[in-house]
Order: sequence, then structure tokens, then C-alpha cells
Amino acid sequence: VFLVLLLATVCGMGLSAQVKALAPVAKDEYYMVTFVSGGEYWKGCFKGFKDAAAVYGAKVVYDGAPEYELNRALTVLNQIIDKKPAGIHISCMDPVAYIDPIKRAMAMGIPVTTFDADSPDSGRHTYLGTSNYTAGVYAARHMGKICGGKGDVAVVTVPGPLNIKQRVDGFSDTIAKEFPGMKVVQIANGGGDQTKSAQATANVIQSTPSIKGFFCSESIGGFGSAQAVKEAKAAGKIHIISFDTDKGTLDSIKEGVIDATIAQGTWNMGYWGFNFLYHLKHNTLNPVEGWKAAGINPLPPTVDTGVTVVTKDIVNSYYIKY
Amino acid sequence: VFLVLLLATVCGMGLSAQVKALAPVAKDEYYMVTFVSGGEYWKGCFKGFKDAAAVYGAKVVYDGAPEYELNRALTVLNQIIDKKPAGIHISCMDPVAYIDPIKRAMAMGIPVTTFDADSPDSGRHTYLGTSNYTAGVYAARHMGKICGGKGDVAVVTVPGPLNIKQRVDGFSDTIAKEFPGMKVVQIANGGGDQTKSAQATANVIQSTPSIKGFFCSESIGGFGSAQAVKEAKAAGKIHIISFDTDKGTLDSIKEGVIDATIAQGTWNMGYWGFNFLYHLKHNTLNPVEGWKAAGINPLPPTVDTGVTVVTKDIVNSYYIKY
Repeated sequence: VFLVLLLATVCGMGLSAQVKALAPVAKDEYYMVTFVSGGEYWKGCFKGFKDAAAVYGAKVVYDGAPEYELNRALTVLNQIIDKKPAGIHISCMDPVAYIDPIKRAMAMGIPVTTFDADSPDSGRHTYLGTSNYTAGVYAARHMGKICGGKGDVAVVTVPGPLNIKQRVDGFSDTIAKEFPGMKVVQIANGGGDQTKSAQATANVIQSTPSIKGFFCSESIGGFGSAQAVKEAKAAGKIHIISFDTDKGTLDSIKEGVIDATIAQGTWNMGYWGFNFLYHLKHNTLNPVEGWKAAGINPLPPTVDTGVTVVTKDIVNSYYIKY
Repeated sequence: VFLVLLLATVCGMGLSAQVKALAPVAKDEYYMVTFVSGGEYWKGCFKGFKDAAAVYGAKVVYDGAPEYELNRALTVLNQIIDKKPAGIHISCMDPVAYIDPIKRAMAMGIPVTTFDADSPDSGRHTYLGTSNYTAGVYAARHMGKICGGKGDVAVVTVPGPLNIKQRVDGFSDTIAKEFPGMKVVQIANGGGDQTKSAQATANVIQSTPSIKGFFCSESIGGFGSAQAVKEAKAAGKIHIISFDTDKGTLDSIKEGVIDATIAQGTWNMGYWGFNFLYHLKHNTLNPVEGWKAAGINPLPPTVDTGVTVVTKDIVNSYYIKY
């Protein structure tokens, strides 16, 4: 008995308050859930989620429907909720269809946060994602810089998705506002397809021989523009700024065909999302007296996770090893 | 020797990875620095900062120039930097004047974050603060709700400061966009003075007898409007939405003269600001390989800390005890 007490005392002296408040609970598992779950894009998010869990010594699981199929995605989510995990970080395939399961999870006392694609009316504690308009602003400023503030530029995009439109708006507005010597001559439809994007790029090069650069609002368009610019033997002369950090895009930056790409803060979405869930679960949040009963949110309601302009100088950092 | 080894082993077995990564360092002190440092507004921010530090078992210090005097504020900040603390969370009295000291601190390896008032070109890791436009949107929606979507309303404000203008814009835009049965009939100048704000409010009541409500974009204007509405014996009939959670405003909500006030996420500014500094200092952030050399930010670049509409139902929560 004496020895046991001694051990407890000595060990206890070495422990700080944090051990009590933030010590991991052995049975607790935190889930990150996506759709088209094999997508390369999610790897950066889950790396952040795992990195944060490792800091606290907590357990994480990655899951999601492998296909782009709403019913399947909802089934996977509902099965996870039934396990009553310690917390769930969700990228929502559909903002409306996710309301019911998220409300159900939160009614069961499971902390829920969302990332990359939100369900704003679900009551989730917070959403972490990219400000796509700001991403377009960054792309425009980098284009302005590499073009020396002069010349005609074009956009290769996909009409439809709101996040894609916001990127294009941010780009076009910023060129118009901040670069009086530049002009967006065309917003071309690449259809989210490499061959169509290459054709659209080739058409612009033919109709506007003075063209200095292309902003491609998603990675497939970037592959197409890169192909067309190479075929026109204009690599390095006609500049390309693409989006996201797929291996093909990074390779093309190394090769010197794509000048830069806009990296989203995927690691931030995972790392800080986990922190939010963990502090919620461990009940360390107390913004004001009686906040829970009063329905007061102890988290920032939305977090812009930022973007980085990835050029040749830093491209090697983005080949993530899992 | 045997006993010591045994102790170390037993203790070690009970410790998780987090103890190594996030255990507090005894000599480390984290500073929160403001200006007009006695202001009531900062108490909520520092409560969040302290609450977060307590979770990790870390030490915090609050400091700042008591007066509204730039040179004095900079002197206090520079003295803190000279102590080489573990991290500094700063509300910047001036965005430009704070660039040099923040750059100096970061060159010394001190993590720096800002809150409430930013210095965006200083290179600080992140800024946490209120989206003032969104705050105005919330005020408008609550006004729309309590007026049943109908009637004339007015604003009592102070021309000049950008954050105040953004609140008024958010309010006016939202009334125009979302409430076709309502109209902002006047944006009155209360001069940031209670007597002037009361006079401005009384003038509107006289010129527009149909007036249904006032949005006061800062707390002093709210005191003035409350005074005028009481003098007109119209408490509860003419609605008031004010800003921030000064004791006087909370008392007036309890009394039924002010309907609601917009609380900023001050606790969030402190709690999550501390977490950002602590994780930076403990080197737990690694978004991509070689991120430091590549200049990549492992934090969200800006965080909207949110607002809460404080009504009679939840007003008691906001009387913070320190």
C-alpha cells in the first residue's frame, strides 16, 4: 500500500492540470467522414486530423462512401453515428440531406464539425473551409506579378458549382480592380474534362495570340491547359495558374509548364477541426456562464482555412508522404 | 537506482503522447496585450486566454497601456518582447505602427497572433476577430423578427471608424434585402455620446412617429437611445438593439428597455488565440514537409470569432464573474 501511494504521489507531481482536462479516453474514437473517399484531396485533410490526434494521444478513424452517391454516403454516416463516436468531422455531399443525420448525432451528444463542404443549417458547431473568392484573389495577384502587370489573360473553368464560380469571380474582380494594364479576355468552358479544356485553351491561343496566361479554376482544367500550351510550344511563355495539389499538377510545376497552383488549407481543416472536436468532447469550453443552456457557440462559427500559392520554389513540400 | 527506474517506468506507462507534446514548460509565459487596458471589453478576451492556459497548465500574463496613447502602447509591447515570452496575443492600437515590433518579435522566434484589431501586414500568424458586417446582418434579422417584418426603423451610429460602418452596412443591406416590409428611415449621428445619442433618437421619434426600432452600432449610442425611449414612455413599444455586453446594456435588457445586444466572440478570441500560440510554441504544427522554410502558414490566416444575439432569455449568462 505504501509503495502504491508513493508511486501515485510521485507520478501525480509530474502531471499537470492538462492531463486531467485533455488526457485521451481509451475508448474514444474520432471519425473523419467524406464522400468519394478515395480522393487524393482528402489525404491532406486526414493528415491534419491524425497529426492533431497524435498530439493528444487520441484515436481517429477515416471513413466515407467510395462512390459519388448520396444515399450510400448517408448510410455510411448513419452507421458511424450509431457507434456513438467521440466526435465526427464531416465533409457534406449535400447541405440539405445532411441536416437530419447531423441533428440526430448532436441530439445524442456527439460533437459534430464540418469541413470543405458545409451543411450550414444543420446546427454543426463550426465549419472549416476555403474562402474560394479569396483563392481567386490570390491567383489574380500572382498572375499580375508573373505578367509584370501587363497583358491579356483568360480563365478555363466549369460553369455550375458555386465554389468554382467564386474562384473565377475573385480572379476577374481582382484583375479588373488591381491591374489596369491587364484584361480577362475570355472565360472559357473546359467542362471539367482534360481534352475539352485543352481544346478551349487552344481556341483562346488562336483567337488571342497576345494571350499571356490562363487561370484554371480546378485541376482537370489545369491539365488541359498545360497540354495545349505544350502543344503550342509556349511553355514558360504562356503562364498557367492551376488549383489544388494533385500529383500531376505538382509534376507539371516542376517541369515548368504550370507556373503555380493554389493549395487549399486542407491540413488546417483536419488539424483544427480535430482540436475543436476534442476540446468540445473534453468539456474545456466555457465562454460564459450557462453557455450550453443558452445555446451559445464556444467555437468560431466558420473558419477560413486559407490558401497558399505553390510555385516551383516550394513545390517539393507538397508531395505528401502518407 | 532500481526504485527510480521503476518509478520512471510506471509513470511513463501512465503518460500519453500528449504529455510530451503539450506539457507546459515551467518558465514559459504567454502574454495578452491590449491598449486602454482597463476596458471592460477585454475581460471576456482574457477569460478565454486564461481558460485555455488552465487546460494546459500554462502561465499567462495580461498587460497593456492603460491610456489611449500610441507611444505608450508601443513601449509596453516592446518591453514585453524584450522579455522573450513564449507567445504574444496582441490587440493592435494601430495597424501600421505595430508592424515593426511584431516583425521584431517574430524574428526572435516568438509566436505572435492578433485579435480584435489586426495589423495585417505585420506577418503575425493569424488574426481572430468579429466580422462586423455579419454582426450587422444578425442585428437586422433580429430586428425583423421582433418587428414582425414590418415598419420603419433607424440607426444611431458614429461616423468614422470602419468597424462601426461595417455594422451599419450589414444592418441596412439586410433590411433592404430580406425585409421588403421594412425601411431604414434614418442613419442618425449619435457622436459616441449618450446625451447626443438620446437627442438624435428623440428627433427620429418626433419626425417619424411610426418608428418601430433603433439599431445602435455601439454601446454608448444604446444608452442614449434607451434614455430617449424611456423619456418617450415607449419602452417595449419602440425596440432597441444595441452592441457589446457592458453591464449597463445588460441591465437595460433585464429592465426591458433594450430588446437585445450583439455580443462579440471575445472569449473565442482569447481561448483559440491561446491554443494557436501554444501549438505553435510546442511545435506540433506540420501542414506539409518543410513548411517553415517554405513560409507556409500552419494556421487559418483569419478567424471570424462570431456573434451572439443576447436577449432577456440568456442575459444572465453575460454577467461574467472574474
